[in-house]
Amino acid sequence: MKALVYHGPGKKSVDERPKPEIIDPTDAVVKILKTTICGTDLHILKGDVPTCTPGRILGHEGVGVIDAVGSAVRAFKPGDHVIISCISACGTCNYCRRSMYSHCVNGGWILGNTIDGTQADYVRTPYADTSLYHIPAGAEEDALVMLSDILPTGFECGVLNGKVEPGSIVAIVGSGPIGLAALLTAQFYSPAEIIMIDFDDNRLEVASRFGATSVINNKDGKAAEKVLAQTNGRGVDTAIEAVGVPASFITCQDIIAPGGVIANIGVHGVKADLHLERLWDRNITITTRLVDTVSTPMLLKTVQSHKLEPKRLITHRFKLDKILDAYETFGAAAKSGALKVLIEA
Amino acid sequence: MKALVYHGPGKKSVDERPKPEIIDPTDAVVKILKTTICGTDLHILKGDVPTCTPGRILGHEGVGVIDAVGSAVRAFKPGDHVIISCISACGTCNYCRRSMYSHCVNGGWILGNTIDGTQADYVRTPYADTSLYHIPAGAEEDALVMLSDILPTGFECGVLNGKVEPGSIVAIVGSGPIGLAALLTAQFYSPAEIIMIDFDDNRLEVASRFGATSVINNKDGKAAEKVLAQTNGRGVDTAIEAVGVPASFITCQDIIAPGGVIANIGVHGVKADLHLERLWDRNITITTRLVDTVSTPMLLKTVQSHKLEPKRLITHRFKLDKILDAYETFGAAAKSGALKVLIEA
Amino acid sequence: MKALVYHGPGKKSVDERPKPEIIDPTDAVVKILKTTICGTDLHILKGDVPTCTPGRILGHEGVGVIDAVGSAVRAFKPGDHVIISCISACGTCNYCRRSMYSHCVNGGWILGNTIDGTQADYVRTPYADTSLYHIPAGAEEDALVMLSDILPTGFECGVLNGKVEPGSIVAIVGSGPIGLAALLTAQFYSPAEIIMIDFDDNRLEVASRFGATSVINNKDGKAAEKVLAQTNGRGVDTAIEAVGVPASFITCQDIIAPGGVIANIGVHGVKADLHLERLWDRNITITTRLVDTVSTPMLLKTVQSHKLEPKRLITHRFKLDKILDAYETFGAAAKSGALKVLIEA
Amino acid sequence: MKALVYHGPGKKSVDERPKPEIIDPTDAVVKILKTTICGTDLHILKGDVPTCTPGRILGHEGVGVIDAVGSAVRAFKPGDHVIISCISACGTCNYCRRSMYSHCVNGGWILGNTIDGTQADYVRTPYADTSLYHIPAGAEEDALVMLSDILPTGFECGVLNGKVEPGSIVAIVGSGPIGLAALLTAQFYSPAEIIMIDFDDNRLEVASRFGATSVINNKDGKAAEKVLAQTNGRGVDTAIEAVGVPASFITCQDIIAPGGVIANIGVHGVKADLHLERLWDRNITITTRLVDTVSTPMLLKTVQSHKLEPKRLITHRFKLDKILDAYETFGAAAKSGALKVLIEA
Repeated sequence: MKALVYHGPGKKSVDERPKPEIIDPTDAVVKILKTTICGTDLHILKGDVPTCTPGRILGHEGVGVIDAVGSAVRAFKPGDHVIISCISACGTCNYCRRSMYSHCVNGGWILGNTIDGTQADYVRTPYADTSLYHIPAGAEEDALVMLSDILPTGFECGVLNGKVEPGSIVAIVGSGPIGLAALLTAQFYSPAEIIMIDFDDNRLEVASRFGATSVINNKDGKAAEKVLAQTNGRGVDTAIEAVGVPASFITCQDIIAPGGVIANIGVHGVKADLHLERLWDRNITITTRLVDTVSTPMLLKTVQSHKLEPKRLITHRFKLDKILDAYETFGAAAKSGALKVLIEA
Repeated sequence: MKALVYHGPGKKSVDERPKPEIIDPTDAVVKILKTTICGTDLHILKGDVPTCTPGRILGHEGVGVIDAVGSAVRAFKPGDHVIISCISACGTCNYCRRSMYSHCVNGGWILGNTIDGTQADYVRTPYADTSLYHIPAGAEEDALVMLSDILPTGFECGVLNGKVEPGSIVAIVGSGPIGLAALLTAQFYSPAEIIMIDFDDNRLEVASRFGATSVINNKDGKAAEKVLAQTNGRGVDTAIEAVGVPASFITCQDIIAPGGVIANIGVHGVKADLHLERLWDRNITITTRLVDTVSTPMLLKTVQSHKLEPKRLITHRFKLDKILDAYETFGAAAKSGALKVLIEA
Repeated sequence: MKALVYHGPGKKSVDERPKPEIIDPTDAVVKILKTTICGTDLHILKGDVPTCTPGRILGHEGVGVIDAVGSAVRAFKPGDHVIISCISACGTCNYCRRSMYSHCVNGGWILGNTIDGTQADYVRTPYADTSLYHIPAGAEEDALVMLSDILPTGFECGVLNGKVEPGSIVAIVGSGPIGLAALLTAQFYSPAEIIMIDFDDNRLEVASRFGATSVINNKDGKAAEKVLAQTNGRGVDTAIEAVGVPASFITCQDIIAPGGVIANIGVHGVKADLHLERLWDRNITITTRLVDTVSTPMLLKTVQSHKLEPKRLITHRFKLDKILDAYETFGAAAKSGALKVLIEA
Repeated sequence: MKALVYHGPGKKSVDERPKPEIIDPTDAVVKILKTTICGTDLHILKGDVPTCTPGRILGHEGVGVIDAVGSAVRAFKPGDHVIISCISACGTCNYCRRSMYSHCVNGGWILGNTIDGTQADYVRTPYADTSLYHIPAGAEEDALVMLSDILPTGFECGVLNGKVEPGSIVAIVGSGPIGLAALLTAQFYSPAEIIMIDFDDNRLEVASRFGATSVINNKDGKAAEKVLAQTNGRGVDTAIEAVGVPASFITCQDIIAPGGVIANIGVHGVKADLHLERLWDRNITITTRLVDTVSTPMLLKTVQSHKLEPKRLITHRFKLDKILDAYETFGAAAKSGALKVLIEA
C-alpha cells in the first residue's frame, strides 16, 4: 500500500509499505477513506518530536472502513464506517477510567507517532472498541475527519476547560485551524462575545465568518489594551491560547478578568512567564490539556443536529498520491490560506 | 482608644486614637475582644503594600462585640458576639453576587489596608450584614479569630481550589501558618496522603502533629525527587503552594500528576517560570485566589462539630498594650516557633 | 395612583391607592413603565394562595424608573431604569449567601403576595440593591419585563436544573408560556433535539417557530410511547415538567433515559406518584425549584447579544387602565392565543 | 466444584458444578477466596427477580485469585489477587464511557443474576479488565469483599449522590448494612451531624458506634418531627433512603431542607407518593442509582489509608460448605444481629 513515511528531520516520501495486520485481539485494521495533516505532523518533520522515529508512517486523523478486527473487538465489524480518534484509549487503565484517555498508559497519542499512522491506504488501530467511533448512516464522511483531532481539541482544551457560558466574554488568541475549531465549538454555549486575535487579516476574516463578534489584529502589539478597552477594563471571562508561544500566553494573562479561566491549547516548546505578582489574588484558573477525545460522541450529535459544520474547516483537497503537495499547501498556510487539507485515499 | 498604627515603612506604634463611629447605614462598630497579626501586616510594615498609607490602624482579623450598628443593618444588634471577616463584602455588586467577595467593588480587603483595622479597641466594619458572622453561644471565642482569615484562606485557596478528595494525594509546599491551615482543613476530605514540605524541621514536626502523613525537609533541594519516589513516579493529585516564591511554585510543577491541580495560596512579589513546554499536555489546572471568606459559615459548623480545632494554630498570647511584643514574636517565627499570636484587647 | 387590587376569591378591581413610600433604608420606590400578568396571579384570584390577602395590589413583574431610594441603597438612584425581580432578596441571609434567593428568609416571593405588587403606577421594592437590575442603555425595555420572572424561571428551574447540554435530547411537557421560556433558553446549550409536548396544536405551532425540533400532541395519550419510539427506546436526557399536574410528571418518568434529569417547573396542587419500583435503579435525578433569579444578569447579557429575544413571548398589549381586559385575554389563553400580555402604565 | 444454586422461589442447595472456563477473550476465571450474601440474594430467593432463573449460581461479591484469563485481558494474570465488582462493565458502550457501568449494555448486574455468580469455588467474570480490581499487597483481604458491592453502593448512591459536605447535616433512614455503609463513607466529608433512623435499637446502637452523631428509633412514627426539632425546623441537607419502602421515602420528604438532596439507595417494589404540592418550590433534588462501582479505586485508597475499615461490617463467618447456615443467619438479621456474613471458600 501507499504511505507517507517520515525519514528524519526534513525528510518524507510516499513509499510502498505492506498492509498492516491484526496483532492484538483488541486491534482493528481500517481502510482509510480520508485523512488530513495536523500541525503536529509539521513538528515531527522539523525533528521536534523525538518519540517519532524515522521510518514511521505519519497521520493520526482519518475516517475509513473496517477491514478486519481482532477476536476481542465487540463494537465493530468489517464494513463498518468509522472515525479514527487521534488518541488510542485502552479503556481499562486508571487514566482511561477517569476519562483521561490522553494519558492512557497503554495508548494515548501513539498513531503516527510511536506506531504507524493514518496517512496510508490502511492503518492498524489498537483498542478499536474505545478508539473508533461509528459514522451514522447518511453522515457527510469527509467532514467527519475533523472529529479525529481538531474539533475535540478545540472543544475540550479550549471551550470545556475554558468554561464558556451563556453571556460570557471569550477571547481566542490565535486564529489558525485550532483557534477556529475553538471558535466554532464555543458557540455551543451562546457566549455574548467572542473576540479573535491574530496577526493575519485573512485568518481574522475567516474568524468573522465563523462567528467571532469582533477581531483584533495584534501586529501593533496592542491587542490586550484593546480587549480591556472594549470590556470596560474588566477583561474576559475565558481566554483561549491557541498558538503555543510565550507572547500569546502573556496576552491571555493581560486580558483575563478576575474569576476567569485561561485555557491553553497551544503546544509550547519553551517555558513562559507567569505573572503571579499580578495574578496571585485574581482568582483565576489556568488549564492545560492534551485532548482526551471524550467529547467525540457529543460532537457527533452536534454535527448530526447541524449545530456544527466541520467541513467549514476544509479548504483544500488532494488524493493520497499527491500528499506531498498537500503538505506543501498546508505548510504554507499563510500564503495558501489553508486551514485543513483533506486527503482522499 | 488604643490602636496599632502604621507610620510608614519600618515604623509602627501603639497610639491613642478616637473611637470610630458609624458612617454609612450598613456599618457596625465592633468592640474588639481578640485580634491577631497576619503575614500581610508584616508586608505592610516593609512598605510592600502601597494601598496602605501611613496613619493606618492595621489588622484585618478579630472577634468582638457589636457596639453600634447603622440604620440598615438587619442581622446584628449591639451586644452580639461576632467574627470579623478579613474581606468586607457589599453583597450587591456583580462579584459579590457570584460569591467572589474578594473582588467586591465596594469592599474586598480594605480593613487595615485602605480603612482602619482591627488592632485596636474598636473598629468600624462596613457592610456589617455580609462581613460579620454570629458566634454561636458556647463557642470558644479565642479560637474563632482564626476564622477571620487564615482558616478560610487555607481552605478556599488551597483545599477547595485544589479539589482535595477522599483517597487523593496532596502535597503542601510551605509549613507556615497558612500551609498548616490548609493541612488542617484538607483533612475534611479524607485524602490518603498529605505530604508537607518545608525547610524548617520544627514546622514539619508541627505538621506531623497536625495530620501530615509524611514530611520532607527540602534543604537539600530534593523534595520533588522524593515526592515522585514515594508516589511511584506519578506525582500528587493536589499541590498547594503556601509560600509565595518562584522556587516553591516550581516545586509544585515538578510534582503534579497528570490531571492534578496546583492551588496557589502564596502572595507572590515576582513572576515565576511556568514550564508549559512540559505541562501543556499534562491536563493540569493552576488556580490563584484571594480568599472570598464564603466558607466561613461552613467552617463555623466544622468547629462546632469538632472536626476542626482552630486554637491549634495559636502559640502565643499578648494583651493589646503589648502588641509590639506580639509583632516581634510573630516576626521572628523561625526563632520563636510562633504560628499565630492571639492579642486580647 | 391606579392599581389592580385583589378583593378575595374571584374579585379584583382597578382602584385608586396612595403612592407607596420608602419604609426601610434598603427600599426603592419604582415608577412602573411596563408590567404583565403571571399564571400565579390567576391562582391568587382563584383563592389558591392563602398568603395573599384581600386588599393586596397584585403583580410581581415589571420594568420601571427609580422614583426614590432609601438611605442604604448604593446601586440605584432616581431616574435609573430597572427590571424588578419577582424575588426580593435581602442578600444577607444564609439562603441569599448560597444564591438561593427564592428562600430568602426576609424576602423571597413577596411582591404582589404579602406586600403590594407591580400592577400599579408605583411599587415599593424592598432590598433594592439585590432585587433590581439596571437596564442597559439602548435596550428594548418592553421585552425586559420578561426577565422579571418567566425567563429566569424557565431557564433556572428547567434548563439549568435539567442540565441541558450540547447534543442532548430534551423533552418539554407543556407548551404554555413557561414551557416556551424553557424552550427559548434551552437553546443556549445547543441540544440536538427539543421535543415539545402539549394538547394544544396552536401552542405546539408556536413551539415549532420557537425552535422545537419536533412536537407531539398528547391528546391520544401516546406522547411517552412516541418519544421512546423516536429515541430508539432510550428516552430523553432531560425532561422538563412545565404544567404542574400529576399526569405530566408521570409522562416525564415514562420518557426519562437512565442517567437523565427530570426538572420540574410546574406549580403542583396535589401529590403525584413516583414510580420508584421502576426508577430506583435508573440513575435519574428529579429537581424542584422556585426561581432564584440568580441568572438575571446572565440573561440580560444574552438579550444584549441577541441570543435571546424576550419579546417573542409577548402577544398582546394593554394600557394599565385596561388591565381587566388584559386579565380576561390572559385568562382565556386557549381562545385568545395569549402567551404574555404587556401592560403599559 | 461446590456452588450455592438457586432452584426457584424458596429453593436453594449446595451443589457440585463443573468449574467454569474462559468463553470470551475478555473473561477471567477467578478462584473465590471469600464471598458474602447480599439482601438482593434474598430477593432472588423470594422469586422477586425474574431475570434470575432456576439453576443459577448466586452471588455477586467476592475476592479471589485469578485462575485463568482470556487472550485480550491485559491488566490481570493468573495468581493476581482481585476484588470482583458486582457490576460487570464492558468499558466500551456509551454508558461505560460515561462511567455509568450500572447500565452497561453488555454487562451491568449480571453476576449471580443472568450468569453464574460468586458463591462457588470458581467464577467466570466477563470484561475482567474493567470489572476486577487488584488487591494491594499487604491488604486485609477478608474485608475487601465489602468493596464488591455494599460500600460502593452506600457511597455512590447515598453519599456522592447526596452531596454530603463538611459541616452539613445528614439523615440516614435505615440502619441496616447498606445504611451503615453510607454512614461509614459519609464521614469522608466531615459532615457536622449524621442522624440515623431505624426501628431496631440494636442497629441504632451499631450506628452510634460507627459514627452517627444521634439516633432516632421511629417506632412511634415521630422521626420526622424529632429531626425537625433538632434542626430548628429547618431539616437536613441530605436525606439518604436506605430501606426501600414508601414510608421511609416519605420520611425523607418530611425532613429535607430547602436546597437539600434526597438520595435513594433502597430497592423499591412499589411506587411512592411524591408530595410535589409541598416540594415543588423547595429547590430539592431526588436521586436514584444502581451502583456503578466507579468509586472502587477511590475506596481502595481510603481503606489503604485507614480512613475506612470495611471489616466493621462483618459480623459472622462461615465456610462455603456451611453457606446454608450463612443464609439462615443473614436472613434472620433482626435476631442474629447479622450485618454482613463472610463466607470462606
